[in-house]
Amino acid sequence: MIDLKIAVDAMGGDNAPQSIVAGVERARDEFKDIDFLLFGIEDEIRKFLKNETRITIVHTNEMIVMNDEPVKAIRQKKNSSMVLAAKAVKEHEADAIFSCGNTGALLAAGLLIVGRIKGISRPGLLSTLPVIGESNDGGFNLLDSGANAENKPEHLYQYAILGKYYAQKVRKINNPRIGLLNNGTEPHKGSKVTQEAYKLLSDDPNINFVGNVESSSILNNVADVVVADGFTGNAVLKAIEGTASSIMHLMKAMFLNSGVKGKISALLLKSSLMELKEKMNQSQYGGAVLLGVKAPVVKAHGSSDELAVYYTLKQIHTMIEGKMIPDFVDYFSQQRISAKIEK
Amino acid sequence: MIDLKIAVDAMGGDNAPQSIVAGVERARDEFKDIDFLLFGIEDEIRKFLKNETRITIVHTNEMIVMNDEPVKAIRQKKNSSMVLAAKAVKEHEADAIFSCGNTGALLAAGLLIVGRIKGISRPGLLSTLPVIGESNDGGFNLLDSGANAENKPEHLYQYAILGKYYAQKVRKINNPRIGLLNNGTEPHKGSKVTQEAYKLLSDDPNINFVGNVESSSILNNVADVVVADGFTGNAVLKAIEGTASSIMHLMKAMFLNSGVKGKISALLLKSSLMELKEKMNQSQYGGAVLLGVKAPVVKAHGSSDELAVYYTLKQIHTMIEGKMIPDFVDYFSQQRISAKIEK
Repeated sequence: MIDLKIAVDAMGGDNAPQSIVAGVERARDEFKDIDFLLFGIEDEIRKFLKNETRITIVHTNEMIVMNDEPVKAIRQKKNSSMVLAAKAVKEHEADAIFSCGNTGALLAAGLLIVGRIKGISRPGLLSTLPVIGESNDGGFNLLDSGANAENKPEHLYQYAILGKYYAQKVRKINNPRIGLLNNGTEPHKGSKVTQEAYKLLSDDPNINFVGNVESSSILNNVADVVVADGFTGNAVLKAIEGTASSIMHLMKAMFLNSGVKGKISALLLKSSLMELKEKMNQSQYGGAVLLGVKAPVVKAHGSSDELAVYYTLKQIHTMIEGKMIPDFVDYFSQQRISAKIEK
Repeated sequence: MIDLKIAVDAMGGDNAPQSIVAGVERARDEFKDIDFLLFGIEDEIRKFLKNETRITIVHTNEMIVMNDEPVKAIRQKKNSSMVLAAKAVKEHEADAIFSCGNTGALLAAGLLIVGRIKGISRPGLLSTLPVIGESNDGGFNLLDSGANAENKPEHLYQYAILGKYYAQKVRKINNPRIGLLNNGTEPHKGSKVTQEAYKLLSDDPNINFVGNVESSSILNNVADVVVADGFTGNAVLKAIEGTASSIMHLMKAMFLNSGVKGKISALLLKSSLMELKEKMNQSQYGGAVLLGVKAPVVKAHGSSDELAVYYTLKQIHTMIEGKMIPDFVDYFSQQRISAKIEK
């Protein structure tokens, strides 16, 4: 029984194609209902492939690299592994696309090749971040975390809907708490965009809107989904990642530079340190998802290892199984009808 | 020889007036050229004051509290310690104002009572953040870190000038590196605001512009001054602070919850842990400064202790001694003249 197919850009990321192939095989062994299309250099892929069951290699020599200009790369590198994978989705040969490559190019492929769902103005990138110091192990979602450099209030409102469905379908949260990223918690706070978005969100009884949330507290379980314009969302995501990584390095240096005392402490605290590292590791949540396009377009970190690739394929499996995209399509097509009726 | 005077809101902050008074006395003992005006409840202040040398108490019972609406509070609580302190600056009875109280109210007092410097459109709040994992102990400055909810490209350009003078005068950096906070490092990246600001900054030969910087790397010594619109700057500042605080809590919990192993490790690593804590402690840099108004308007954290108050008063001393404000006034008045000539 094969009923879903994932198009994989086997050449994107620092560890491609090795960890991509390993992650795909791991997911293939666990999920018997997924078939994979691997786009990339056939010889390179075969070097790491143990078993071809439900895996089809589509050979291409062309690749989009990290410093390619995204839109230009998508338009010009028509035979690149990423573009071919996106085309497979567009032509209904696959249900989703996965890549660890150039983020901007993947977003462009999502918008220009896979295409927007009718009724959605500006697809947004959803990221999952950890919740710290709370029992909530599922983290929280932030969107738009960087697909757009500018957004209008209506876009933020649509992100709330998209994020709500994602949290319900993938994270199995019944009535997700939606927060609006703002520079203060009071309702009147913020820019024109956030003030207007606040009204749209609080006026919709179908959204469990918990009000404004500040970036100082989003790691502390104040909301399941945090909506933001893409510029601020991206800045906050990167600030959190950068700060966490800097402090973890500082901590590591503390153990390494404390001589014998550091070595003993590291041994004594080994299990706690592993737990801390695990807590900060985002790969268990899967990749970042471009929401608002006609199929899951999913980006895992460039440095993804086998496990991170596996988790992301698992996340895609859950999205497809939960029929998230058909629900988006239904919801936004009805919105268009009701908007027309109101006129 | 008394040649400068600081107006102190003695009633603002969690530890007022005790730690304010203690910090003022410490600064008074070190800097023989500062005189202080302490605004607040006389009996409360006297309870902690050891010695009145160069300290004048101006009694008032009225206070602005943390949940007062800023502009309303400034307009209605005319005898509050904060408003009286700001008025002392406006009437040239003092050279700067210091408070650990309501940030929004202090910003409003700066704008509405102390007043803007001619030629400056939107004063911005400058914060100092630590640089991690590098030899640079002076940290870096971020502005606007929250005085405005919206900014135009010209405002960001003015923040670069203001931040440059601050870094030169207070941090003694000869030719400060100025970075523009953006969602990518390439010149074309960002919103209309950052794209236009990029042009203004790169066109000015007097600015040592290092280009776009991302929030993931600003802790790693990429620039001495980072300019941003107030909404993004505020979100990034709070994301960094929130993440750092969450991880430090997690680390503390690791030691506390690891039983005897944790206790031994904490003892072994004591000096390194103190160093780590010190590294993350921002109070050594002083407070956040509203730049672009006619006198230093400086906000220290609500939880400031004696030492944090002392450091902030020292920072104010350096600003006044370095004649930062007269330099701003000169610079921006010349800009107005040249702008007129160009027309």
